[in-house]
Amino acid sequence: MGGDHGLPVTIPAAISFVNREPDAELILVGLEDRIRAELQKHKALNHPRLSILHASEVVTMDDALEVALRRKKDSSMRVAIQLVKDEKARACVSAGNTGALMAISRYVLKTMSGVERPAICSILPNQKGGPTYMLDLGANVDCEPHHLHQFAIMGSALVAAMEDVAKPTIGLLNVGAEDIKGTEVVKQTAELLRADHASGLLNFYGNVEGSDIFKGTTDIVVCDGFVGNITLKASEGLARFFKSVLTAELKSSVFSLLGALLARAALKRISRRLNPSRYNGASLLGLRGLVFKSHGGADIYSYEWAIKRAFDAVKYDVMSRIANKMQGLMPHDGQS
Amino acid sequence: MGGDHGLPVTIPAAISFVNREPDAELILVGLEDRIRAELQKHKALNHPRLSILHASEVVTMDDALEVALRRKKDSSMRVAIQLVKDEKARACVSAGNTGALMAISRYVLKTMSGVERPAICSILPNQKGGPTYMLDLGANVDCEPHHLHQFAIMGSALVAAMEDVAKPTIGLLNVGAEDIKGTEVVKQTAELLRADHASGLLNFYGNVEGSDIFKGTTDIVVCDGFVGNITLKASEGLARFFKSVLTAELKSSVFSLLGALLARAALKRISRRLNPSRYNGASLLGLRGLVFKSHGGADIYSYEWAIKRAFDAVKYDVMSRIANKMQGLMPHDGQS
Repeated sequence: MGGDHGLPVTIPAAISFVNREPDAELILVGLEDRIRAELQKHKALNHPRLSILHASEVVTMDDALEVALRRKKDSSMRVAIQLVKDEKARACVSAGNTGALMAISRYVLKTMSGVERPAICSILPNQKGGPTYMLDLGANVDCEPHHLHQFAIMGSALVAAMEDVAKPTIGLLNVGAEDIKGTEVVKQTAELLRADHASGLLNFYGNVEGSDIFKGTTDIVVCDGFVGNITLKASEGLARFFKSVLTAELKSSVFSLLGALLARAALKRISRRLNPSRYNGASLLGLRGLVFKSHGGADIYSYEWAIKRAFDAVKYDVMSRIANKMQGLMPHDGQS
Repeated sequence: MGGDHGLPVTIPAAISFVNREPDAELILVGLEDRIRAELQKHKALNHPRLSILHASEVVTMDDALEVALRRKKDSSMRVAIQLVKDEKARACVSAGNTGALMAISRYVLKTMSGVERPAICSILPNQKGGPTYMLDLGANVDCEPHHLHQFAIMGSALVAAMEDVAKPTIGLLNVGAEDIKGTEVVKQTAELLRADHASGLLNFYGNVEGSDIFKGTTDIVVCDGFVGNITLKASEGLARFFKSVLTAELKSSVFSLLGALLARAALKRISRRLNPSRYNGASLLGLRGLVFKSHGGADIYSYEWAIKRAFDAVKYDVMSRIANKMQGLMPHDGQS
């Protein structure tokens, strides 16, 4: 039900995904009548791998956490997460209110052993052609060193599972590469990570700068949710700006239009490689269950990527692989 | 002498700039023999508007602040800033160590009345076609609300002077637009800014998100130096990534090459509009004198933009306009 566009985006994306992926089954959670109408519109009302589960309420983007969590007990978000808890679904995908999604997920699913604060982790494209995993992207605006330390551990476990890399490299986002740079929180986090590196638990590369995210210097970039959210949104904004300049200039004359026509295969590849839609679908990390957050403004194509991300996480059994990995990595005094 | 490339970048940029700008006079500060040799190479040894001032030492990128400030008293950086102090130069431009440039500038020039911490302010392009001024970009990694408040005042004074806007709009960089979002520091800063807005001192728009920087939602974006530095460098990294994808894909086939040839005017305009070089030259704001910092990695073209930025600031009498503006804006209990 969520996101800026609601069902006109989420339903067609769901239909397209199940048609593309014969092993996928989706349960559409929300206002039954409206879901039914939207399915009908796309002639998919009787799709064998699409079912509907009615939920009478919807968490809005403006709902306070308190309202989402305590009052709307039959919200689509809550019911969908409960499906994961009850093992009737293997993952939950939502484009709704991020704060509410995190709060309800924590409340219903609980955090993994040793995790104090779940984090939001997403991937960004880099110049090496691979993904850079970045966390936290907004769940925790104020972080202590041990929180950032846990993010590094969770990120490491996720990348090990998703990318099949034994010891993914971890970079700590900072204003410079040198140890003396940065805030006290970052300096103390670096000390914790250096200790883990020395004992062979984690592969800590050191401090990285903003530019390293897109260079692909490390597999994982760790930061607090304030910096992460702002950096991510600034990058998305810049990507949109690029695209608008590219489009406007190529349409500016007959010559450039002709040129664009000739180079259209290349332009298509450029657009595909730089398309932020492909990187939609952030994982809520550190929970006892898989929950994925789509960008609120996602279009159909983009929302389908978020579903695919969740599907792949199930396929690669990321949940138990992370849990196993975490057990080995978490400091024993940090057990909750 | 500074930057990643030193004289092979700074000297040709200086020559190009004085040739383009008949009112400009530049004093080249540093190791005389090497400057002389570089000028000779470009047949500009006897240029009537280029002079050399010898300084026997050079601050390196690795020098600790202590070394730059206390030991290297005859560094090119120190000597150049002293020229501004002595009113023998109207502005100083450097591509050197940012921390050292700020520390020496503070020590030699002192801060303006009411300014506790100078900030680094630069411009970024936005979709509206204008510049977005952003500060702080790295001088202050840990900030209190009253520091961010001062940055807003300084930024407002700078934009009023540079862009001739009476009441430039100010956005506070945050993880969401709503008042309840963000860290305690940001929330308290918003309160200070709302009070200034109510009394008509500043034009506070409210919270802005990362994407608003490139949308051009506000004339000024205020943040601490940690977030600002990381966001700026991430954006620069993404711009480089974008350029490399564009170049690689357009060269990938005969058709796309032909297309690129036909659309070359458009591609040139794209490259020009997105060229970060045009936005080189950050001002060190809040000092009793004009100091501009070029990106360390700047090429000749880019370094010339930093010189131009300093030249324009002198031409528009930014220094006294800011000082006047600041007197009206600074809270009287904040006087130092």
